[in-house]
Amino acid sequence: MRDHALKVRVRYGETDQMGVVYHANYLLYFEMGRTELLRAAGLPYAELEKKGVFLVVVEASCRYRAGARYDETLDVLTRVERIGKATASFAYEIRGADGRLCAEGRTELAAVDRSSRPLRLPEEVVRRLEA
Amino acid sequence: MRDHALKVRVRYGETDQMGVVYHANYLLYFEMGRTELLRAAGLPYAELEKKGVFLVVVEASCRYRAGARYDETLDVLTRVERIGKATASFAYEIRGADGRLCAEGRTELAAVDRSSRPLRLPEEVVRRLEA
Amino acid sequence: MRDHALKVRVRYGETDQMGVVYHANYLLYFEMGRTELLRAAGLPYAELEKKGVFLVVVEASCRYRAGARYDETLDVLTRVERIGKATASFAYEIRGADGRLCAEGRTELAAVDRSSRPLRLPEEVVRRLEA
Amino acid sequence: MRDHALKVRVRYGETDQMGVVYHANYLLYFEMGRTELLRAAGLPYAELEKKGVFLVVVEASCRYRAGARYDETLDVLTRVERIGKATASFAYEIRGADGRLCAEGRTELAAVDRSSRPLRLPEEVVRRLEA
Repeated sequence: MRDHALKVRVRYGETDQMGVVYHANYLLYFEMGRTELLRAAGLPYAELEKKGVFLVVVEASCRYRAGARYDETLDVLTRVERIGKATASFAYEIRGADGRLCAEGRTELAAVDRSSRPLRLPEEVVRRLEA
Repeated sequence: MRDHALKVRVRYGETDQMGVVYHANYLLYFEMGRTELLRAAGLPYAELEKKGVFLVVVEASCRYRAGARYDETLDVLTRVERIGKATASFAYEIRGADGRLCAEGRTELAAVDRSSRPLRLPEEVVRRLEA
Repeated sequence: MRDHALKVRVRYGETDQMGVVYHANYLLYFEMGRTELLRAAGLPYAELEKKGVFLVVVEASCRYRAGARYDETLDVLTRVERIGKATASFAYEIRGADGRLCAEGRTELAAVDRSSRPLRLPEEVVRRLEA
Repeated sequence: MRDHALKVRVRYGETDQMGVVYHANYLLYFEMGRTELLRAAGLPYAELEKKGVFLVVVEASCRYRAGARYDETLDVLTRVERIGKATASFAYEIRGADGRLCAEGRTELAAVDRSSRPLRLPEEVVRRLEA
């Protein structure tokens, strides 16, 4: 299964008054990791949408291990965990500049058309994610 | 010209590590104020969009006077400042629970259709905003 | 165990180009629900922080059932699910204006001090959440 | 006066249901541009804060020219516009992948200490921003 590593710099506005990244913002980093994994797999998500294939998040979870700091360069490690007929799961690890685990999570995505009706994952998507 | 007062509670995720509301988030409060002014004027913005009238922000400005705090209930005061043929300006003041001025600003909005082509402001919109 | 119902109006900036609420934003609604449950329990979270008790999210999950729309008034139903010595779990349901289930999830929170060291949940917090 | 160019990829969650970047998010791109200009000038902002110098936004404005799209790689052009005794202004242009002007704006920042009391801009900051 495919995996991908991305560096993301924490923005000021992503912190909260605890002085660390606000918990909901890790889902944005997950999405950035997934987007770049798809691009590296030859499947830029913007192109998928133009072809009428939307991958919507149907489930997301995250465990928070250590706070990520403003301006820290995070490693977002994304891998394809499972591919079904109409869904795909991705797993994520976010590590701080010193290698500590900040957060880990997973999302399940389902393929739908423009009207939110379920679709089978196109064969090309399956093949490229399994590579 | 019409005006409107709205109370908004500051969310945790809207603060940053300075311990006050992150500056970009005041534009969200401005939008909430404008939305409720429009609703009070009998012009719910979601209805305008359904009729094909989109009001897009073409200019925004904000002066920051004092930090707003987590969980503080802010007063968002919105008033229509000027109505033109295709544009309208709104002015805003955001005050803390103790009445201090936290921020003031203005936005200029332009009417466009679904394809972003300029539109005249519908007469009903003009009439209701002037009321 | 305590529960609480809150109404939240979807903001424009909380939608994405799919025309529904961006998935990470449901965690913000969860937090609003939790904050208001705590307030209703006589435990305004801002007061807890002033006393040196921080409740940090250590785990969050969400299942997405149906897209919530711009300007829709959502029902955020929050209930205390489990209270441990140093942690508490909350469960959430978010329902659209027509009652359809948009999202459901849970978060686990841990009590820590200002330096992020684990704390026992103060007895008063336990008592009020169980009420 | 110093200037700096940065590339920023638009995230999905930064769009709204109009299908373009939500207007408040341009302020985040401005901040990213400013942060990288400071770093390139040898003044990483996180270091300034550690030394007790906070640069807070006291005024921001933006004109919106054309919508930026999901996944587009934007050019964020930042330049120091004016440096005073206790304040500095930055000007920004955001251009799409095809060079079109999406937004332009400016922010004024004031130096304050940890308690939000006004400070003179440290000489080193002035010298490096003028370079």
